[in-house]
Amino acid sequence: MRVVFQKLVTVEEALKALNKHVKPHHLGIEEVKITVAHGRVLGEDVIARINLPPFSRAIVDGYAVRAVDTSFASEVNPIRLKVIGRLHAGEDSSLEIKEKECIEIDTGALIPKGADAVVRVEDTSIDGDYVIINNSVGKGSGLATFGSDVYHGQFVISKGEELTAEKIGVLAGLGYDKVKVFSKPKVAIFSTGNELIEPGLELKASKIYDVNQYSIGALVQKSGCTPIYLGIKKDNLEEIREAVIEGLKLADAIIMSGSTSAGVSDLAYKVFDGLGSPGLIVHGIAAKPGKPTIIAAINDKPVFGLPGFPVSALIIYSLIVDPFLRAMSGKKLEEKKKLGAILATRYLSERGRREYLPIFLKNSKKGLMAIPILGGSGAIASLSSADGILEIPENVELMEKDERIDITLFSDAKISDIIAVGDFSPISRVILSELRKKAIKVREEFRGLEHGLAWMRDEIADLLVSCTPKSEKVIKLIPLRVKKIRSYTMDMVWAFYGDGISSGSTFILPKIGSGLRNYAEDKIKIMVKDFDLIETWSYDSTIDLISKRRNMIALLPLCIAVNHDFNFIDAFPAKVSYFIHEEFLATEIGKKLTKIMKSRETTQALSSMLGISMK
Amino acid sequence: MRVVFQKLVTVEEALKALNKHVKPHHLGIEEVKITVAHGRVLGEDVIARINLPPFSRAIVDGYAVRAVDTSFASEVNPIRLKVIGRLHAGEDSSLEIKEKECIEIDTGALIPKGADAVVRVEDTSIDGDYVIINNSVGKGSGLATFGSDVYHGQFVISKGEELTAEKIGVLAGLGYDKVKVFSKPKVAIFSTGNELIEPGLELKASKIYDVNQYSIGALVQKSGCTPIYLGIKKDNLEEIREAVIEGLKLADAIIMSGSTSAGVSDLAYKVFDGLGSPGLIVHGIAAKPGKPTIIAAINDKPVFGLPGFPVSALIIYSLIVDPFLRAMSGKKLEEKKKLGAILATRYLSERGRREYLPIFLKNSKKGLMAIPILGGSGAIASLSSADGILEIPENVELMEKDERIDITLFSDAKISDIIAVGDFSPISRVILSELRKKAIKVREEFRGLEHGLAWMRDEIADLLVSCTPKSEKVIKLIPLRVKKIRSYTMDMVWAFYGDGISSGSTFILPKIGSGLRNYAEDKIKIMVKDFDLIETWSYDSTIDLISKRRNMIALLPLCIAVNHDFNFIDAFPAKVSYFIHEEFLATEIGKKLTKIMKSRETTQALSSMLGISMK
Repeated sequence: MRVVFQKLVTVEEALKALNKHVKPHHLGIEEVKITVAHGRVLGEDVIARINLPPFSRAIVDGYAVRAVDTSFASEVNPIRLKVIGRLHAGEDSSLEIKEKECIEIDTGALIPKGADAVVRVEDTSIDGDYVIINNSVGKGSGLATFGSDVYHGQFVISKGEELTAEKIGVLAGLGYDKVKVFSKPKVAIFSTGNELIEPGLELKASKIYDVNQYSIGALVQKSGCTPIYLGIKKDNLEEIREAVIEGLKLADAIIMSGSTSAGVSDLAYKVFDGLGSPGLIVHGIAAKPGKPTIIAAINDKPVFGLPGFPVSALIIYSLIVDPFLRAMSGKKLEEKKKLGAILATRYLSERGRREYLPIFLKNSKKGLMAIPILGGSGAIASLSSADGILEIPENVELMEKDERIDITLFSDAKISDIIAVGDFSPISRVILSELRKKAIKVREEFRGLEHGLAWMRDEIADLLVSCTPKSEKVIKLIPLRVKKIRSYTMDMVWAFYGDGISSGSTFILPKIGSGLRNYAEDKIKIMVKDFDLIETWSYDSTIDLISKRRNMIALLPLCIAVNHDFNFIDAFPAKVSYFIHEEFLATEIGKKLTKIMKSRETTQALSSMLGISMK
Repeated sequence: MRVVFQKLVTVEEALKALNKHVKPHHLGIEEVKITVAHGRVLGEDVIARINLPPFSRAIVDGYAVRAVDTSFASEVNPIRLKVIGRLHAGEDSSLEIKEKECIEIDTGALIPKGADAVVRVEDTSIDGDYVIINNSVGKGSGLATFGSDVYHGQFVISKGEELTAEKIGVLAGLGYDKVKVFSKPKVAIFSTGNELIEPGLELKASKIYDVNQYSIGALVQKSGCTPIYLGIKKDNLEEIREAVIEGLKLADAIIMSGSTSAGVSDLAYKVFDGLGSPGLIVHGIAAKPGKPTIIAAINDKPVFGLPGFPVSALIIYSLIVDPFLRAMSGKKLEEKKKLGAILATRYLSERGRREYLPIFLKNSKKGLMAIPILGGSGAIASLSSADGILEIPENVELMEKDERIDITLFSDAKISDIIAVGDFSPISRVILSELRKKAIKVREEFRGLEHGLAWMRDEIADLLVSCTPKSEKVIKLIPLRVKKIRSYTMDMVWAFYGDGISSGSTFILPKIGSGLRNYAEDKIKIMVKDFDLIETWSYDSTIDLISKRRNMIALLPLCIAVNHDFNFIDAFPAKVSYFIHEEFLATEIGKKLTKIMKSRETTQALSSMLGISMK
């Protein structure tokens, strides 16, 4: 039988199809020591096989008595009982107390025959072989009767429950040194794509490091399963088919990712052909991201084909794979917390597909603000820095700025204290590092001055860094109501590894929109007629480039050029300025910020790194 | 130096003293593979060492173009570009496109020189060596520029953050196959007490299984540390001292528990004498439970002496040990959720000590109801079945029934659907098992009919089981507005392993307060003049007892006696009845309950187990 969805299905329909064709509960049971059972899922009902406590025991230090013998005892009318022995915790005893007798007893010791209460030592005094009791006690006082915690035969823990520390304690108390738990489902994982290489290897042109195997592997562990890494497969039918066959042999489920456009997605029928029934059951999901998702069921084992883009893969994992694997492993679903926020920017969505938009959060004077992360589905770093997901229903096309929305929060959400934007600068690295040392949560997005001005205008960002030619007045660029809190002079040079500037050289400049870009480009035009341009986001990137090739000339801060032993000639002095919103200055974080920026530690750190003049 | 608190200190004062004398941040760094890094704590700041993506790449399948060449393209005014080559993902290329040229390109492939946009294949058609484009595209369309996710040099993950799947994905994407994480602190754990034996060994009279090593061991793992189990130590100074010395050698922290009254607590000075400075820093905490807690600091290593009672130990762990160990391991504190509820019973607290009272939760018509668990500090099973903790401030002595309270919720809280109380019966085991199969959360507390009636009266319980002599009318015992939903006849016998009933025999009967107790005792008095009595909570316990000794006579259901091959003579027929509140009948769970009780599955399960007549 082959089940084909001619159209995209919803997430709910995909899960329904999956559950129809694969029974998630085909797990084995294994026995593990209780010392390693934490977090595992109990594979059998536990019914108490002894009483807890197993015998009636003293819960205070004192004297085991017949309660009736203490009747009417008080400070003015103390009662004398004969002490006929002593019982320590852990001692068995055939001693029996009769009328007007008692036995000295420790906490935890067996209540001797005849006794039905324990008088606390604090309420007694000793008189030779006798104890004097100043307080009457009722039956059962000062002791825990056998079975009072759990009675033999009581239903204690259900099959399927996750073992917490308390439950492991109960198991130990009932005498279990080992416990039956569900075996962890094994999940084979591989990535496909000719452009992928393993992390740790050298990055070659046109290649990228494989992300999905590792992020999915971690999620698989979180879902209560054991990942088996099958590696990176080339983007061809045979190799993928072989990997699926290997996965079916080794594991209870398979997750592959990638090859969604040129590869498996289109060839899905062929990959699963003849491997087992029913084969392909879902071919495309009406979600954004995540459309090119495929699901197959082969002889009761699920095969998930996730999109290659890391963000898409992770979102589809959480919507479809995670609930299914948890049904197999017995792990409870994670509770998803919702939180209200205000959308920071207008957002256009696609009609007909439910959209899952990663956002990050920050506090603002309007309240909690949600800022969409627009890196796209390929942007794993953007997702890793997201605080939650905004779910946009199929029938919504436009979400307005300042609209009230509900965010599904990630467990490691951390609301940023400061969003720093504008030009990249080595000075900022020192300053932000000082802020982070003081536990201030800083998010940096140094995407150039223009981008930074836009984010300041929208009040998404708090701290704007400009790096402009010293001769220019940057303040006119800045929207109203921002205040400069500090600025530094930073000498810029033309740095090179080879022979110097000549016609035909390739120049490396900051991206268009950066504060130095236009001025620097004009300067180059004065120096040489014929040149090529390469852009970088950051000086780290620039250094990488000129270290590799000889006829490149980079605009770099002097301090960096010196540190890296490049040749250089003077370019021009620049000014690095720090701006914040006027209202932000009055906030607690704003005050901390200005304090740290003016502190001796920061100044010292800056001087020692840069050796620049500070004004 | 020795710091002694002459009086009990609060939890906050204890933590303060601890932090004053021990610096929690003395952790090493180790490098682990990213495949096992999930949940570990990052030991270094991660700053992107490459751009992500490392090169500008296509994010759709289509044609790499110069955007300017597509200007004004539309369905009525299509534009033709010459296809000069093809680029697959992962392929490097020196191809460069010039005016009116384009290159066919796969998702993920390097954008060739000269191109600044990708036209989606859906918006094109092929005409020999040319492609016809029906849509104009802007610069940057259909591609992700290098560094658009992360720029080289961008601050990505802070030291001290826990590695989630997304962060592991970023690390992989940046090329890390290994990552520096904080080493897990090692924590040595031992229990003290002469009454303790290891789980798995045979339980001897007056002994109990050690709980604390295992429950604390699990908590230590949850706090991000590695437990080292040192075993059970006898309750004497020398052995405890030696264990502390061993622990100091092996671990970064020590947790011992027990010997709180006779042992370490009183001898604390001697245990820590001469081991290092400052020695004992806390001697007693103003909390209930948890008063006999001691804390020492020895050469920058903390030693926690927790109370021996499992509940006390776990509560003090969560208040003091957990936050401290997490500061060492870098794990974030667990978020503690609060929930409003109504207190089910009046509760008296002790003035001057903050009390932490385990409670469990159930839905009731009044709202969410919190029922105190009164098993006492020794009761680990009670704690393991608790849903949360009610914190009662030092200055509160009385909490009223129906008072609105705030509960600190456990992560594995599960609100019970049905609380079953009353007499223990093998019939109930079958019925409750059927309920549990249908995912109904049943909490059983078969503590006898009297206890059950009280819980029904207070509307804590939902399902009351009575097991009474068939000749008695039980209904008169039952408070108003309860309804019998089912009853069964169960023949009772006098069962024995030895020779039968004679004068001087020991009879085993259900506890006082059970429905059969008085009637059965009267019957015994008719049979023999002289006899001893032993009580049990359950027939499991009864079976254990008569299997071991010969002159014991037990009141047992016929079906159990037959199953265990005991000798027996008829006693009397009993009736097992099931009652619920009338309002409960109308609820969804109530309806499910009656349906399941009357179902064929339940009836069959009962007949096959009991072979009893059902009426």
